[in-house]
Amino acid sequence: MRIGILGTGTVGSTLGTKLVQLGHEVKMGSRSTNNEKAAEWVRNSHSSKATQGTFSDAASFGELVFNCTPGAVSLEALEMAGPQNLRGKVLVDVANVLDFSKGMPPTLTVANTDSLAEQIQRTFPDAKVVKSLNTVAAEIMVDPQMVPGDHDVFVCGNDAEAKNQVKKILGEFGWKNITDLGDISSARGLEMWLALWWRLRMYFQSRIFNLHLQRQS
Amino acid sequence: MRIGILGTGTVGSTLGTKLVQLGHEVKMGSRSTNNEKAAEWVRNSHSSKATQGTFSDAASFGELVFNCTPGAVSLEALEMAGPQNLRGKVLVDVANVLDFSKGMPPTLTVANTDSLAEQIQRTFPDAKVVKSLNTVAAEIMVDPQMVPGDHDVFVCGNDAEAKNQVKKILGEFGWKNITDLGDISSARGLEMWLALWWRLRMYFQSRIFNLHLQRQS
Repeated sequence: MRIGILGTGTVGSTLGTKLVQLGHEVKMGSRSTNNEKAAEWVRNSHSSKATQGTFSDAASFGELVFNCTPGAVSLEALEMAGPQNLRGKVLVDVANVLDFSKGMPPTLTVANTDSLAEQIQRTFPDAKVVKSLNTVAAEIMVDPQMVPGDHDVFVCGNDAEAKNQVKKILGEFGWKNITDLGDISSARGLEMWLALWWRLRMYFQSRIFNLHLQRQS
Repeated sequence: MRIGILGTGTVGSTLGTKLVQLGHEVKMGSRSTNNEKAAEWVRNSHSSKATQGTFSDAASFGELVFNCTPGAVSLEALEMAGPQNLRGKVLVDVANVLDFSKGMPPTLTVANTDSLAEQIQRTFPDAKVVKSLNTVAAEIMVDPQMVPGDHDVFVCGNDAEAKNQVKKILGEFGWKNITDLGDISSARGLEMWLALWWRLRMYFQSRIFNLHLQRQS
């Protein structure tokens, strides 16, 4: 599958590397054609399946696109990627809207009555936005076995077939417990989880943890 | 122990009943002396240890006080309870700031950069506010074994001794995994969990579930 990755940070490079290892063709996009972090990722991938380009190049290239940009600038990055390059495509939003400007732990730039994923879906109505993976650290996204025992990942979005495609990729990553929370508005819950996640991270002094939902069977 | 319960809803009556069963003396407080729901709770308790009164009566009675009023009216109820009756006491805030006026699932009346528990601590600086138990349904609060397997409850607050008293009561309820998240500002994370909790409740079509944190040991 051809996959576009928007963003050159830890999340983008971790997802990109795993997707290349799984045999997918991946183009990492950023503001410029020759972004140094993207170039380093391409070099370290040692694979012709890993390439780089602009946000627009990556979105155009991908049959499926991951938004791995920081949440506070995601709408701007997606605007640069271009609505025409996202039309009809699955857009997996893994971003978090963290605001570190007021100190630690961070607050969110949008919460409660709206979410980044909903903003993206409203702004790009022809994309099929699926929120997923934002609830865990980058290493765990592509290697859930790092965390012992059963633990959970979520998807939500308005398009059932788009969610199925994302669930398939989550399965390739090794995820076993995938909970579908319905339409894209459930992204509010997934993004607001970060408020508790950050405090747990500080308490555990580690980001290698995840939640598991226990319930009556 | 003498315990004041502020609020006559499901949470207040469930906690009150369990505390009486554990041998504590419990006074349930509401706006009026003769509230009918409180009277029903007293009757159903079949115990001289269960009594009712005003918010002020209950707060004055308790060595430790539970805030079980709806989050949106908690500050008003605590004002009626009286700062002088809360002075120096452990005030366990189990409330959630749910706003059902915009439809389901509810939004929160305060979130992200503040929380109800912080508002309470600021408004009643001489009380020792501890946030706890708001992350699970009332039945689970007092009977964690309803949910199979390991699962977690949290405390946060500015006073270590107050948190120890609350942990002791949680132990009496049967809680085994109690995570201390530090000062009262962590209530933001515990209250914002409700955004995800409500969507999980809708997905599971049950409120008998809880989260367990899996991590590298």
